[in-house]
Amino acid sequence: MRASGQSVAAGYGTAVFDRVFAIRAKNSKYMKRKYSVILGNLGNTRDRFCSGYKENPDTLTMLERAAKIPHVEGIELVGTWDIRPDNVGQMKQALSNLGLRCVSIIPDLFADKRFWKGSYSASDAGVRQYALDYTRRMCDIAGDLGCQTLNIWPGQDGYDYLLCADYERERAWLCEGITSLAREYSGIRFALEYKPKEPRTHSYIARMADTLLLAQETGCANVGVTIDTGHAFVAGENVGESIILAKRAGNRLFHMHFNDNHGMWDDDMIVGTVHSVCYIEMLYWLDRSGYQGWLSMDQYPYREDAAAAIGESILWLRQFDEILQQHRARIDEVVSANDAVKTSGFLREVLA
Amino acid sequence: MRASGQSVAAGYGTAVFDRVFAIRAKNSKYMKRKYSVILGNLGNTRDRFCSGYKENPDTLTMLERAAKIPHVEGIELVGTWDIRPDNVGQMKQALSNLGLRCVSIIPDLFADKRFWKGSYSASDAGVRQYALDYTRRMCDIAGDLGCQTLNIWPGQDGYDYLLCADYERERAWLCEGITSLAREYSGIRFALEYKPKEPRTHSYIARMADTLLLAQETGCANVGVTIDTGHAFVAGENVGESIILAKRAGNRLFHMHFNDNHGMWDDDMIVGTVHSVCYIEMLYWLDRSGYQGWLSMDQYPYREDAAAAIGESILWLRQFDEILQQHRARIDEVVSANDAVKTSGFLREVLA
Amino acid sequence: MRASGQSVAAGYGTAVFDRVFAIRAKNSKYMKRKYSVILGNLGNTRDRFCSGYKENPDTLTMLERAAKIPHVEGIELVGTWDIRPDNVGQMKQALSNLGLRCVSIIPDLFADKRFWKGSYSASDAGVRQYALDYTRRMCDIAGDLGCQTLNIWPGQDGYDYLLCADYERERAWLCEGITSLAREYSGIRFALEYKPKEPRTHSYIARMADTLLLAQETGCANVGVTIDTGHAFVAGENVGESIILAKRAGNRLFHMHFNDNHGMWDDDMIVGTVHSVCYIEMLYWLDRSGYQGWLSMDQYPYREDAAAAIGESILWLRQFDEILQQHRARIDEVVSANDAVKTSGFLREVLA
Amino acid sequence: MRASGQSVAAGYGTAVFDRVFAIRAKNSKYMKRKYSVILGNLGNTRDRFCSGYKENPDTLTMLERAAKIPHVEGIELVGTWDIRPDNVGQMKQALSNLGLRCVSIIPDLFADKRFWKGSYSASDAGVRQYALDYTRRMCDIAGDLGCQTLNIWPGQDGYDYLLCADYERERAWLCEGITSLAREYSGIRFALEYKPKEPRTHSYIARMADTLLLAQETGCANVGVTIDTGHAFVAGENVGESIILAKRAGNRLFHMHFNDNHGMWDDDMIVGTVHSVCYIEMLYWLDRSGYQGWLSMDQYPYREDAAAAIGESILWLRQFDEILQQHRARIDEVVSANDAVKTSGFLREVLA
Repeated sequence: MRASGQSVAAGYGTAVFDRVFAIRAKNSKYMKRKYSVILGNLGNTRDRFCSGYKENPDTLTMLERAAKIPHVEGIELVGTWDIRPDNVGQMKQALSNLGLRCVSIIPDLFADKRFWKGSYSASDAGVRQYALDYTRRMCDIAGDLGCQTLNIWPGQDGYDYLLCADYERERAWLCEGITSLAREYSGIRFALEYKPKEPRTHSYIARMADTLLLAQETGCANVGVTIDTGHAFVAGENVGESIILAKRAGNRLFHMHFNDNHGMWDDDMIVGTVHSVCYIEMLYWLDRSGYQGWLSMDQYPYREDAAAAIGESILWLRQFDEILQQHRARIDEVVSANDAVKTSGFLREVLA
Repeated sequence: MRASGQSVAAGYGTAVFDRVFAIRAKNSKYMKRKYSVILGNLGNTRDRFCSGYKENPDTLTMLERAAKIPHVEGIELVGTWDIRPDNVGQMKQALSNLGLRCVSIIPDLFADKRFWKGSYSASDAGVRQYALDYTRRMCDIAGDLGCQTLNIWPGQDGYDYLLCADYERERAWLCEGITSLAREYSGIRFALEYKPKEPRTHSYIARMADTLLLAQETGCANVGVTIDTGHAFVAGENVGESIILAKRAGNRLFHMHFNDNHGMWDDDMIVGTVHSVCYIEMLYWLDRSGYQGWLSMDQYPYREDAAAAIGESILWLRQFDEILQQHRARIDEVVSANDAVKTSGFLREVLA
Repeated sequence: MRASGQSVAAGYGTAVFDRVFAIRAKNSKYMKRKYSVILGNLGNTRDRFCSGYKENPDTLTMLERAAKIPHVEGIELVGTWDIRPDNVGQMKQALSNLGLRCVSIIPDLFADKRFWKGSYSASDAGVRQYALDYTRRMCDIAGDLGCQTLNIWPGQDGYDYLLCADYERERAWLCEGITSLAREYSGIRFALEYKPKEPRTHSYIARMADTLLLAQETGCANVGVTIDTGHAFVAGENVGESIILAKRAGNRLFHMHFNDNHGMWDDDMIVGTVHSVCYIEMLYWLDRSGYQGWLSMDQYPYREDAAAAIGESILWLRQFDEILQQHRARIDEVVSANDAVKTSGFLREVLA
Repeated sequence: MRASGQSVAAGYGTAVFDRVFAIRAKNSKYMKRKYSVILGNLGNTRDRFCSGYKENPDTLTMLERAAKIPHVEGIELVGTWDIRPDNVGQMKQALSNLGLRCVSIIPDLFADKRFWKGSYSASDAGVRQYALDYTRRMCDIAGDLGCQTLNIWPGQDGYDYLLCADYERERAWLCEGITSLAREYSGIRFALEYKPKEPRTHSYIARMADTLLLAQETGCANVGVTIDTGHAFVAGENVGESIILAKRAGNRLFHMHFNDNHGMWDDDMIVGTVHSVCYIEMLYWLDRSGYQGWLSMDQYPYREDAAAAIGESILWLRQFDEILQQHRARIDEVVSANDAVKTSGFLREVLA
């Protein structure tokens, strides 16, 4: 399976990566990069106007396509859609056959109509209970699959209108729910994925710093954060700096989702097609923060060939990483120098 | 039918509106406000995550619900969804029974998968031809229904990525297509609805001024503009000023869609729930520009009772309009005075 | 002095405020609102293009003007500009004569060229030392004036370009500096004022939640936050929600600066001239959070009469407060109901 | 003089540019790039808080510094600041000595306190007259200097608050003023520089398309547009597309100002330090549109060495241009292909 993946890789040229590995040997204190993808990225795409731009392949077909993307070693599975109590055995076998690891499980707290006004923070106590019980089932499945991370994106937890939500009560419920889960499943890392808006106009888990406040409030070391680069751009964050916030708050950066956008909305595009410099900076600060986790692709290729679009993101990241590996000392230097002209001169050398 | 509408209205209080009518008699040179709604606002809502928050009632049920919203006198129909060659007669009868006028037809250039990479500006000549032929059918239907306006929102005409579209060629096609239609159907007014993004990251018909350039380039007096207030907010426009741009470009403001949002995205919310002052200003400049058209509600009530949410918008606009009718001379004065303290003092009197 | 202030007040009408006080008696568990202003708001205004739109009156003249603004009972003084070791006695006497309290001292960490690349977080150890020593002098002055709050806005602490700053090291310095001050002056409350950008493209103290993380990291209960409403708007925050974040993080909301803007930049405009609903919501959540502090005006009236523009903001807040006092139970209800139609109906009753 | 400039250039490496020239010979139908700079970029910088981060050198010193920036062949002069009736002769001689051309004159319509509430559109007829007379003097000076372009940035023409300006009347004055000037000085090209905001919260000349509407309304072929790339970013424009709008409106792109920013505000940074891809796209569409004008640098190097920061922008543009020259056929291909994966693959090859 992977062999055929390699033959696809050949189309992109591999000499460059051999060089990267040689350099990385000299950077041995830094983690080898591990690339993964969210399985659903390979499925149908739609928006509120058009119900589907593509066909929705079955889970195993998507898994095979994902496995063929060069450098992909891990998969994130969305609960209910990709993984359920009834297909755990089948999925475990399929992952094993394809040589893939399950990087995280993402409970579906966003597409289930039941959660339309929130999951852990819903005003309806029955919904809150259901959300917790459902997440527990996902934790159990994670255990079965040898997966250590639950990527929690409570996209419906928030509000749309002013003066329509009791922020105090709802935030308390959200915090209590996550605390309960984290205590019950102390072997699982709960990586909270923040996003300022969509599908709600305001999300409770909105930015890096408020997510860290919540993580700290749980008192559980197994609650941390997922950065989705595009979510952070929409939040007005500079991701390099967000990485350091997470480090200072007790090494709480657990997971990374990569994509690009035009800065205003979660366009979920191919990495590097809008921005360049900030990805080099991200990789630099990931290393400075001691990040050991996966670099996972999370795109929404509305009108693109999904596997190819995801493959592009990984190849961009590998090229940005090569720049970092080759020039780490120079980057240390410009980061300390606080002189935009020096930084610009360096960047011109390595880009363009 | 309308009687039962009035009973709903009673819940909101009608004394205030009697006052409005009394005042309006003194403002006889200004058009009586005419309120309408896009029929689809009463149907299902969804986003790219959740396929449906509501049920999708059939067209006649939605029409009956729309008719019961107080002060609604007109309806906009989306092509294919609400109106097709096969149901024109039935729809005509239903509108007549309910005492409603068809305010505009909105060809479906956005939800049909065929147009996923554009309609009038698609690179595929067959798609461009189809888009034109389909619009012609909608023009014919408009004729049958006695509707003078096609509201054209070419939401898929644009692009997502940089260096992925030939802006010159595609804009030329867009302009040629609209010019052809406008010449063939000289009795129809083509109201181009601009929006800076969504579903594409960049739309060709993006803001008031570029839409006016296109309208002028057609050389046809029956090509003009629809302002969707929320689209204009996202575009960074002050709608009052946009109204004057359209007036100066040859009275090209043909239609108005109303909603509110938080300024960053087309949240399609109830008028007045985020902003207040700018709606008073809009109504003032609509009168100054001699606008005689409809005030149509275009919302997307994801999690709200649709008819009630639309009804709220109309009631807000009527209250803002009452302020204008009662204080037009004062507003003329503060608009001329160029003194924010005076304007603020006036606004405090009439709001809060 | 205040008498003549009252005669100015008369111009705005006072009957409305008598009603407020009557109602407030019934709301006795909520703090009486206390209004103040930053003295510099009454001085010259400029931008990077034009060096001055107004004259710069001397400090005592500004103080007299501030005292005449109806309902102003307190003043914030900017260090060096308004208050220095050499004029403490004179200023104390002047405040006493005018019946004004010194609400906060704002050390000038933003206009002094020495801090052009940061104050507490500057790479230059000498600059960091100077910033701390200078702040200590301001703390001493606060003691002399009976002022309990230092409003810290480290506007130059941040960065402009990517890959030009060591976020880890600089944030550590920032935190160490503030911790030292807070330990040394345990009787002073250090209210950190966040702002996402300007004068730097990125500030370290950028949003509510990162400021709370820093406050918690100091381990000092006398480190908290100032919300500047306009800064929060630029940060994409809903202030009502930010207030609750501060409450949940240990009642760390120490101070409030009020102004309005168009959502994209710190326009420092008159409260209520762009937004309305959110101010009612803010006052509601201030009460829910038990806020006992000042409501201070912080504007930058580029082209307006300063005293009049500031006076307008206070009058808007008093009107919004009257709505809250009269309808608190209704607001409790809509906040719990989670139904935008209900909230909209309520807002239409009280606005417009 | 230029020799010493070259010695500075050597520091950046020139081999790369020899290659560019070789390639450009093969692209002979495209204009040789001509680089220029606005003289004031080399002077003091300040913001509304700090009155000056640098010293303000005298005009001749700045001119000498500008001349030494590698590849600079032209200078833009700000009226009153750099050029006045009394120093025309001296300046002409200085430019000649340094081998520099005067690329444009920029009348100071933004820093003169007299224009605080507008210049050509001011409510005060005396101010409008003064603005016109002052601009006429600048046109006369342009004639003396052999300069064909007036770069008009009416930064104060706009408004700050809603309901505080008569948009209809003020836009009419603006248009009349520019029409008068353009008729009187038919040998001068009036390049209108748009910017959505700052110093006003709303500018009348705000975006490409509204500027084109105004240019067309004058009926004068010598009225066109200046794109400032950073202004366009803040306006939410994709500059490549804006270039085509100007072409379609009668080849009205007269001038280009280059800089970079973080997308939200006119940060006036070094080209290429935030964005990369869009600059390649701009150069491509400049060629497609037949642009023959200058590439002028317009930065505001608050805390940087000005000459070095401007020099960086030019070197970035030359590198992006080299990519274009070497790969024009590939770019034609990806622009036509409408396939983000292909574009991404190409960009990875030439960047990173």
